[in-house]
Amino acid sequence: MRVLGIDPGSRVTGWGLVEAALRSPRPIASGTAVPRGPDAAARLGDLTGRIELLLDEWQPVAIAMERAFVGRNVLSALRLGEVRGAVLALAGRRGIPVADYPPATVKRAVTGFGRAEKDAVARGVDLILGGRHAAGDATDALAVAICHVLHAGAERRLAVRSLPLGAGAPRWRVRRA
Amino acid sequence: MRVLGIDPGSRVTGWGLVEAALRSPRPIASGTAVPRGPDAAARLGDLTGRIELLLDEWQPVAIAMERAFVGRNVLSALRLGEVRGAVLALAGRRGIPVADYPPATVKRAVTGFGRAEKDAVARGVDLILGGRHAAGDATDALAVAICHVLHAGAERRLAVRSLPLGAGAPRWRVRRA
Repeated sequence: MRVLGIDPGSRVTGWGLVEAALRSPRPIASGTAVPRGPDAAARLGDLTGRIELLLDEWQPVAIAMERAFVGRNVLSALRLGEVRGAVLALAGRRGIPVADYPPATVKRAVTGFGRAEKDAVARGVDLILGGRHAAGDATDALAVAICHVLHAGAERRLAVRSLPLGAGAPRWRVRRA
Repeated sequence: MRVLGIDPGSRVTGWGLVEAALRSPRPIASGTAVPRGPDAAARLGDLTGRIELLLDEWQPVAIAMERAFVGRNVLSALRLGEVRGAVLALAGRRGIPVADYPPATVKRAVTGFGRAEKDAVARGVDLILGGRHAAGDATDALAVAICHVLHAGAERRLAVRSLPLGAGAPRWRVRRA
């Protein structure tokens, strides 16, 4: 199960691909996109084009985004909404589910503490992925992807536990004489 | 020259197609879209799918949108931004220019008065298009499309006027004996 985390920004958008593994989420790739173009439409078109390349190459089963932190500035909320909308529409067209997590849930998933600082989040991401992967604008994208892998894993385990007895367990073959 | 006007809304999005004609803009089609889906991504994907059908069928040379009116509510600005972003990214991917007009410019274009009421805008749209076309959520989309057709026409006329003398005028054929 591969998950694409996206940290949308009006100038820079971070992305991080993470895969579920036996013990702990495994890193695949991460980076940032600074879309180019003479106007908002061209830049958002460029951004979605780049994300489509990631979807084509890595075929993630889900996209994870942090639930937009909405400050007091109405204009920046509008601009952030535009980037989010471009990503959401692309996911919707391709039938890829988008999971939205509140910032505190993401922080808790990678550090154990819902109000962790940026540095602690980066250290948590590196600890979980086993290496130095958290860097600049890609850190939050990796963190939300990890958050989704961990939450989805927990949900699967709960689902297996709540199946009727024996449904998830291996069954003995009955040999007929 | 066909222009697609779009009035994005978090629930209902209005659209109106208008064509430049000799005397006055000509109506082609208009309507509203209430996107369906279980979540924001599905709904925005549905909306962009519908707009793509309009682009395929009518091949407009431009999309016109009213510059977002930003109220005091940050969350509604974020939601409106998402719808705008979905439309902008689609236009950007397809290389269709998006023209953004302030609300007062749109009102002035169809009524002559920058602070016209909603009713006056609807009457102005009907007068210009010659018939009863303005209805509900499609009115503002038609108004911004008309606004762009009129502005683009004025720009073309200015461009012709500022050409070197005679460049835009018919020239006599010189018959060689």
